[in-house]
Amino acid sequence: MTNPVLVEVTRGHLVESSHRGAIAVVDAHGNCGAAIGDVEAAVFPRSSVKLIQALPLVESGAAEAFGYGEEELALACASHSGERRHVAIVRRMLEKCGHSPADLECGAQAPSNLAAANALVRTGEASSPLYNTCSGKHAGFICLACHLGVDPTGYVASNHPVQRAVAVVVAATTGISLGADVCATDGCSIPTYAVPLDRLALAFAGLITGEGQSPQRAAAARRLFDACMGDPSLVAGTGRFCTEVMEALSGRVFVKTGAEGIYCGAIPEAGLGIAVKCDDGATRAAEAMMAATLAALLPMAAAERDLFSQRLTRSIASRVGVKVGEIRPVAGLVDAIREGRSLTREDIIRSADSSIVPTARSPSGG
Amino acid sequence: MTNPVLVEVTRGHLVESSHRGAIAVVDAHGNCGAAIGDVEAAVFPRSSVKLIQALPLVESGAAEAFGYGEEELALACASHSGERRHVAIVRRMLEKCGHSPADLECGAQAPSNLAAANALVRTGEASSPLYNTCSGKHAGFICLACHLGVDPTGYVASNHPVQRAVAVVVAATTGISLGADVCATDGCSIPTYAVPLDRLALAFAGLITGEGQSPQRAAAARRLFDACMGDPSLVAGTGRFCTEVMEALSGRVFVKTGAEGIYCGAIPEAGLGIAVKCDDGATRAAEAMMAATLAALLPMAAAERDLFSQRLTRSIASRVGVKVGEIRPVAGLVDAIREGRSLTREDIIRSADSSIVPTARSPSGG
Repeated sequence: MTNPVLVEVTRGHLVESSHRGAIAVVDAHGNCGAAIGDVEAAVFPRSSVKLIQALPLVESGAAEAFGYGEEELALACASHSGERRHVAIVRRMLEKCGHSPADLECGAQAPSNLAAANALVRTGEASSPLYNTCSGKHAGFICLACHLGVDPTGYVASNHPVQRAVAVVVAATTGISLGADVCATDGCSIPTYAVPLDRLALAFAGLITGEGQSPQRAAAARRLFDACMGDPSLVAGTGRFCTEVMEALSGRVFVKTGAEGIYCGAIPEAGLGIAVKCDDGATRAAEAMMAATLAALLPMAAAERDLFSQRLTRSIASRVGVKVGEIRPVAGLVDAIREGRSLTREDIIRSADSSIVPTARSPSGG
Repeated sequence: MTNPVLVEVTRGHLVESSHRGAIAVVDAHGNCGAAIGDVEAAVFPRSSVKLIQALPLVESGAAEAFGYGEEELALACASHSGERRHVAIVRRMLEKCGHSPADLECGAQAPSNLAAANALVRTGEASSPLYNTCSGKHAGFICLACHLGVDPTGYVASNHPVQRAVAVVVAATTGISLGADVCATDGCSIPTYAVPLDRLALAFAGLITGEGQSPQRAAAARRLFDACMGDPSLVAGTGRFCTEVMEALSGRVFVKTGAEGIYCGAIPEAGLGIAVKCDDGATRAAEAMMAATLAALLPMAAAERDLFSQRLTRSIASRVGVKVGEIRPVAGLVDAIREGRSLTREDIIRSADSSIVPTARSPSGG
């Protein structure tokens, strides 16, 4: 099945680029809220399931034993931008379990936040694993190893007790058995398991409602969701989609990005889980797909809608700041998601009206 | 027409993301060398036609009048990385026609080369239009205005004599009449006109062979191609595709990138022009498409093939440097281009063998 075009990138009044993808919305019973494209195709969730990967940290009692509060839990679920506060909290997570940044196995990375990266350049400080966008998750893994009484060394390996515990929870929440055939290595060296898109949505629906979960798991998920939605600046960073959308829709939505155009989310008041994947891996398009999904499913007050509209349709500006195009969901996408139907031929024709058409040709090209 | 998947991004042994696109290869008479996907669809060429946009600078006599040599001509065709040498040459281009960086209208941009960007951060120097990847082209525009005896101010506007001269050459070489209906604004504020992909390839075939061109235009094109292929480090920068591929295949190929996944090229020995566009705008995929095209059309010695193979299939590494996946043309693409045929069902099936398949599902998701 070829996924439909869901996001257009325009320049002037023509479409310059387009992004295909799939969107799955389900409730905790697996009932389909919306299914755009091939929602049964397996995708690598990458960092979009960090909240699920952090469940063992809470469920095991490790977080409580080592005095992790809201901030530490948010960082365990974060793909942070390496800003000062992010790094300070990760350092504290390591200190609380008697470890140091040298024990992180995620690899060094410069902060994705430009000001933070430039601050390091100015002081001449080398980038370190602390600034890796996954360092909070990794600090949580080390903490879990300590609590389990095992050596944290090698905690990124799929056969280490930490990753085995994580895989058990991913399998249980998605209802998928995870074998070596669907396992690959994430950029931060831990395993990532390919899971059908609708099963990712199902996992978040189950966790946000607690339905079908043990009381222990439901409580752990609630603590993690609250930590993330309570201070969205910790989950991503200044100016980023996850942070801005969770701030704009305070407490009404959880969203989490992952590399290669994946996004997961949950809407507590509707009891829905969401998973989107852009076929080509573009973050700009995955964000627009998630924005369209939220616009369809979440009644918004005028103020929320204003804050949100810039994320639904993003301007592309020239280097002197003049708007020259935009990134936007295709016409009909928001309606199709709201109505729980596929994109119709009419939607696609409506959208194609704004596409580039071949121009008049002269007989000779020279 | 839906373009075929031409590039796969793998993780482990599964396909994580995929890129669709089109590839046009034609000779100077418009004979099709290869046509993959919809090659008649119009695309914005963006910076991939900088060499064409620089033709008026040479044809008018401006370059000669102001003493522009090989280096200045290469920079006029460049999307440079803002490295020290790039910026020094652009500064000289402006000085030679009595102007300064303050006259550039492309807007400020930090160097894309990380070391160059960090050097600015360390010294506290603000980024300026000099570091804009298009500053060489813009310096050439200012030089052309001087030679035409018109005020350079506003040289980025579509009705300024400089942009009118540029549009005339783009129209003549592509054989397309360029109206306001296909005009949009590039990131550096100049007009960009949507042109069918095969007509972009035709333009480069005509210019690389000189066939169908006036002696003046053929000579101007030859000077610009020679300047670019003679020192590819000036056309892009350290580690970049345009520079590395032109260096590896010294003098045997011209390639030039543009934003949103467009690439143009020419093979002098075969008399062919090339244009590729990745539907979703990804540079990583446009590079792989161009690499596949060159691999198909250019007989290579063992040493050239070795240098080139890393550009044909690029490794994706984790943050600790371990290979976790790759970016590669789909199976059959190189053969299809070489044989001048479309991708067959067999090619697509061969490719799909390595795609992600839905995993086993348990009855319940909780």
